[in-house]
Amino acid sequence: MPRFDGRGSAQLRPTKITRGFMPNAEGSCLIEMGNTKVICTASVEDKLPPFRKLEGELGWVTAEYGMLPRSTNVRTPREGRNGPSGRTVEIQRLIGRSLRAVVEMPVLEERTILIDCDVLQADGGTRCAAITGSFVALAEACRKLVDEGAITRMPLTGMVAAVSVGVVGSDELLDLCYEEDHRCAVDMNVVMTDKGRYVEIQGTAEMTPFDRNRLLRLLDLAQVGLEQLFKMQRAALEGIL
Amino acid sequence: MPRFDGRGSAQLRPTKITRGFMPNAEGSCLIEMGNTKVICTASVEDKLPPFRKLEGELGWVTAEYGMLPRSTNVRTPREGRNGPSGRTVEIQRLIGRSLRAVVEMPVLEERTILIDCDVLQADGGTRCAAITGSFVALAEACRKLVDEGAITRMPLTGMVAAVSVGVVGSDELLDLCYEEDHRCAVDMNVVMTDKGRYVEIQGTAEMTPFDRNRLLRLLDLAQVGLEQLFKMQRAALEGIL
Amino acid sequence: MPRFDGRGSAQLRPTKITRGFMPNAEGSCLIEMGNTKVICTASVEDKLPPFRKLEGELGWVTAEYGMLPRSTNVRTPREGRNGPSGRTVEIQRLIGRSLRAVVEMPVLEERTILIDCDVLQADGGTRCAAITGSFVALAEACRKLVDEGAITRMPLTGMVAAVSVGVVGSDELLDLCYEEDHRCAVDMNVVMTDKGRYVEIQGTAEMTPFDRNRLLRLLDLAQVGLEQLFKMQRAALEGIL
Amino acid sequence: MPRFDGRGSAQLRPTKITRGFMPNAEGSCLIEMGNTKVICTASVEDKLPPFRKLEGELGWVTAEYGMLPRSTNVRTPREGRNGPSGRTVEIQRLIGRSLRAVVEMPVLEERTILIDCDVLQADGGTRCAAITGSFVALAEACRKLVDEGAITRMPLTGMVAAVSVGVVGSDELLDLCYEEDHRCAVDMNVVMTDKGRYVEIQGTAEMTPFDRNRLLRLLDLAQVGLEQLFKMQRAALEGIL
Amino acid sequence: MPRFDGRGSAQLRPTKITRGFMPNAEGSCLIEMGNTKVICTASVEDKLPPFRKLEGELGWVTAEYGMLPRSTNVRTPREGRNGPSGRTVEIQRLIGRSLRAVVEMPVLEERTILIDCDVLQADGGTRCAAITGSFVALAEACRKLVDEGAITRMPLTGMVAAVSVGVVGSDELLDLCYEEDHRCAVDMNVVMTDKGRYVEIQGTAEMTPFDRNRLLRLLDLAQVGLEQLFKMQRAALEGIL
Amino acid sequence: MPRFDGRGSAQLRPTKITRGFMPNAEGSCLIEMGNTKVICTASVEDKLPPFRKLEGELGWVTAEYGMLPRSTNVRTPREGRNGPSGRTVEIQRLIGRSLRAVVEMPVLEERTILIDCDVLQADGGTRCAAITGSFVALAEACRKLVDEGAITRMPLTGMVAAVSVGVVGSDELLDLCYEEDHRCAVDMNVVMTDKGRYVEIQGTAEMTPFDRNRLLRLLDLAQVGLEQLFKMQRAALEGIL
Repeated sequence: MPRFDGRGSAQLRPTKITRGFMPNAEGSCLIEMGNTKVICTASVEDKLPPFRKLEGELGWVTAEYGMLPRSTNVRTPREGRNGPSGRTVEIQRLIGRSLRAVVEMPVLEERTILIDCDVLQADGGTRCAAITGSFVALAEACRKLVDEGAITRMPLTGMVAAVSVGVVGSDELLDLCYEEDHRCAVDMNVVMTDKGRYVEIQGTAEMTPFDRNRLLRLLDLAQVGLEQLFKMQRAALEGIL
Repeated sequence: MPRFDGRGSAQLRPTKITRGFMPNAEGSCLIEMGNTKVICTASVEDKLPPFRKLEGELGWVTAEYGMLPRSTNVRTPREGRNGPSGRTVEIQRLIGRSLRAVVEMPVLEERTILIDCDVLQADGGTRCAAITGSFVALAEACRKLVDEGAITRMPLTGMVAAVSVGVVGSDELLDLCYEEDHRCAVDMNVVMTDKGRYVEIQGTAEMTPFDRNRLLRLLDLAQVGLEQLFKMQRAALEGIL
Repeated sequence: MPRFDGRGSAQLRPTKITRGFMPNAEGSCLIEMGNTKVICTASVEDKLPPFRKLEGELGWVTAEYGMLPRSTNVRTPREGRNGPSGRTVEIQRLIGRSLRAVVEMPVLEERTILIDCDVLQADGGTRCAAITGSFVALAEACRKLVDEGAITRMPLTGMVAAVSVGVVGSDELLDLCYEEDHRCAVDMNVVMTDKGRYVEIQGTAEMTPFDRNRLLRLLDLAQVGLEQLFKMQRAALEGIL
Repeated sequence: MPRFDGRGSAQLRPTKITRGFMPNAEGSCLIEMGNTKVICTASVEDKLPPFRKLEGELGWVTAEYGMLPRSTNVRTPREGRNGPSGRTVEIQRLIGRSLRAVVEMPVLEERTILIDCDVLQADGGTRCAAITGSFVALAEACRKLVDEGAITRMPLTGMVAAVSVGVVGSDELLDLCYEEDHRCAVDMNVVMTDKGRYVEIQGTAEMTPFDRNRLLRLLDLAQVGLEQLFKMQRAALEGIL
Repeated sequence: MPRFDGRGSAQLRPTKITRGFMPNAEGSCLIEMGNTKVICTASVEDKLPPFRKLEGELGWVTAEYGMLPRSTNVRTPREGRNGPSGRTVEIQRLIGRSLRAVVEMPVLEERTILIDCDVLQADGGTRCAAITGSFVALAEACRKLVDEGAITRMPLTGMVAAVSVGVVGSDELLDLCYEEDHRCAVDMNVVMTDKGRYVEIQGTAEMTPFDRNRLLRLLDLAQVGLEQLFKMQRAALEGIL
Repeated sequence: MPRFDGRGSAQLRPTKITRGFMPNAEGSCLIEMGNTKVICTASVEDKLPPFRKLEGELGWVTAEYGMLPRSTNVRTPREGRNGPSGRTVEIQRLIGRSLRAVVEMPVLEERTILIDCDVLQADGGTRCAAITGSFVALAEACRKLVDEGAITRMPLTGMVAAVSVGVVGSDELLDLCYEEDHRCAVDMNVVMTDKGRYVEIQGTAEMTPFDRNRLLRLLDLAQVGLEQLFKMQRAALEGIL
């Protein structure tokens, strides 16, 4: 069955990473994957969260995620008085964990890097785009710290990117857009390093539990997309990494 | 004394209005005034706020205002659990009142137009830019309602724009940037219609109370800027108004 | 057209300031303007707000505003879980700014004066009455600090009072009561020092934008009322100022 | 040992009830017991709380309690974001229960009477003064409903008043002021009807558990005060009850 | 009239105290009174609440109370965003006061003992069961502190227990179950020390105000139950007290 | 390397499921896996959440998760004013999704089954134990609905259980206890149906990203444990399924 937007089943949406999009931030980019557009910024703060101090550890990376009200087709109310929604909490925890997996924290010393991912336009896959873009913002901020002599070397142990795969009808598809995500039987987000190792696999059977063969085919499909995303990150970070 | 960015005292910052910036919204624009950049969207909702129903009146226009965390030089935390700050509340009420002054509300029937102003970059004058840009988003959304036959005619009775003026040292200046706003003795926001009538005047002596002559000179200065802003709005709304 | 309560267009409501109304407070008064009655107290606290310390500055004056539930004809629920309303936030910020404009802050040293304005009865103009009454409470508290040798001299650089003016139908009126406020086309609050200089002008076209001539006539009208209010403040503060 | 303010151990503080103190309310009074001053208002609302509807019952009486920030010697912050304090919750539940004990609820039909007790000055015994004063406000509001033909007859089955008794050192004292309340070994609030029956007894050993003889003597002492309070309520309600 | 569950009017429900029920806690028990089952734990924290430090006093005991959602017949929602309900606040304050009446606080030094009472099953009398069980958890935690040499001696000056009594129809009954509690005309909770002195008496006329004779009979009835509860506490605390 | 508690690497902790543990609930069990003990209840509510009605769909299953304060070695504060923590939100969403994967929702008609999982003791793996136990509570509640004739047949399409697997040092281990969970390099929760199909796979590299071979071995290990858990569920549900 042809895809909603004419793509092949193993094809990413047109993707573009614009580094330095938010000039006030220490690191930033705009990542566009089809109609999904996310602003990622990295802010350096010269302090650690209390729990990190308690553990006697140095360095921290954490993330926040938000959506502009009209990033969606029907207006999404701002989060507020009741705190971030369950979905938002899950996403920001995932972004933070994914980035920390490639950061040698102690190199950052008494510093936290706070990532903000703000969705300008949402068409499925915002959490994966946010991870992929955040790595670019993070790397830019780290380079700035090195250049200023604030830290002694780049704290990155590798690159990290993420992509969604899923099952719609009986088709296994790469990089689901909203329409596909909405109707899929299985939804999986794969976060991987550029060495091909998994940082996080979150597979959910929205309707139909899946077997191991399907799992393996979906992981293969994800890898196809992830390798292209690493290339784009490298291009965006030329002279930085 | 020359201005911080080399402008003349009666000169606006380079200003640009890009209509249709957020394709999901019924109306939208990006307004840039120097380094101040605000995304304005207009969302049409087919219901009225409860108080409006209670009054037995039709139509409503209201506004929300937010800042991306890295719109500022030092990261501004997201507003949340404690609700919008006092500053945010003041600004969104001002935007709402300013727009309502040029809307014939009953033409909107059982509809609310909800304006969202989200600051991408903040360098002074965000509330004025938000008003000027919101008018463009509002007009675009109204035209869409007319084109769809949802309302019988454009509900706008005029145009509205806003600009800041202030006193820095002994200089009276138009369109203050952050550095000027920060040091000014008097700060005034002037919201005006294209017929040259005031919708809102908010003059505050941050340090030195001011006399009537100064008030009049500042109002003259505002008018210089406002006339240019009306021209840009008209250009952005060609075929819409 | 005769006014709702028979007053002339340039006539204040019967006004009375009773100093020392709340004996527990360092400074206090009850201000009555017609049926509008506000209790103003000044509390001295031996500490500064965090942001003030960060700026390395001494002294601060701030304000809170509340209404007893039956200050209004229909019961107004207590503010609470959701924080103060937008209206309350605007009013308390205005009161604080207005008072700070006549206080030489450093004279207060490591102290904050916290003004509480609690409305016993509301019949329009509560924010203006609150400003006028708060100045009396503030001055009484300052005198007490001087008498106790806590500060070296009175920190006041002048007096401050406030009054509303507005346009009802085609009449320009001084000191609007609720009924007038409710129907007015233009509503303006004027905060002025006893030297005739403006601290704050907030003019809002509730329905009809206004031109400059009207603005000037309204400012003249406000001045008539403000001069009477300064006299009453002086009388209430005999031996204090 | 003589009392803090020279009273005998079985003597009330000078007490005064001023009915109609808040003209906007359906019923109101100011009750003064020495330096304790409480404004009590009764508001009639033409609806029932949801739980009451669920039970299929008619009529309800409930209460809220607040303190002006400078009712106390050291400023008490306004209650807000975190909701009413534990102390406030206990007091408003006690006031509501006490009043409901003398109201034949169904006579009120689909109506709630909401009592507001706002403390102008606090010098001990505010909850008892609030109960005694609230009965006056409640009765006035009920009479108004009868006069308007809204209800068929007065719903009151008796009068209710409250007083505190306590043990300071070895002295058993009536109507404790703040200084006494602060140092007492036993603190008891007695809420009684004018027929001499108990509505609520809340006896707390703040430091020294007490035996039954002490309990009985304290109840006798309370009765002395309560009989005087009933007289004052009757005087304040002449022509109403 | 025979009781709902066949008991005599002066008979406790089958009661059982299982010490050490929560092995992670410093002190704990499960108390079962008929179908009412409450888990009580005592946690030792090496710090004092801020107000206690301010007063310059050592030692503190405080309590929290919660219900599992299905402790009740109809599910009770978890308390949360709006803070504990009025009922919960009243109960946890009562538990804390009751325990503090038998603790010589300074013996605890810079420590707080925090009691948690979590209701597994609720069938009336949960607050009384919580007090009786909490004393056991508290004593166990204190003994542990003595055994570890953290404090020099047991800080307990006596035992404390609580029981409810009430009037259903014309019967005076001991230890009300939910069905009885629900229909009672008078409801009284009596908190007493093992020396027979009152720590707290809370008598409420839910419908019918009561006279002194009834009060005295109810206190006698409570004593019958309390003496049995002290015996069970002593048995559960063998080797501890 | 031998495990912390002497188990083999592919050995579950001693596990026990006690059905009917909370007699007030429509379905319930206590599940014990070593020192991890979770109470699971199922409550039937005769209404649907608003979003479900909006979608025009019937039936819903959702879950809440809580911990008793002393379920942990160091007391965990109750969640409250700030809403459930990020961890809690993630867990309750996971439990809900897992159960819904084996429920044919429309069979429930206008009903929601609300699962409560309350942790009595926490020693790692509480979310997995909660899923396994919740299925038992859910099945019991469904049977009750069938027996009462409220629904026409059992809505369950299979069984669901969950277990954790992880990598500690270089060992791949089944059913991690807290000490193991705390030090693991990879942590994976596997939710599976009794047909051997995955409902949810959540694999997280806490420190070391993992490759596909490790993933496959971990999934094999999980299956060993899950098959035993299905047996215990079946035993606990004899006569019910």
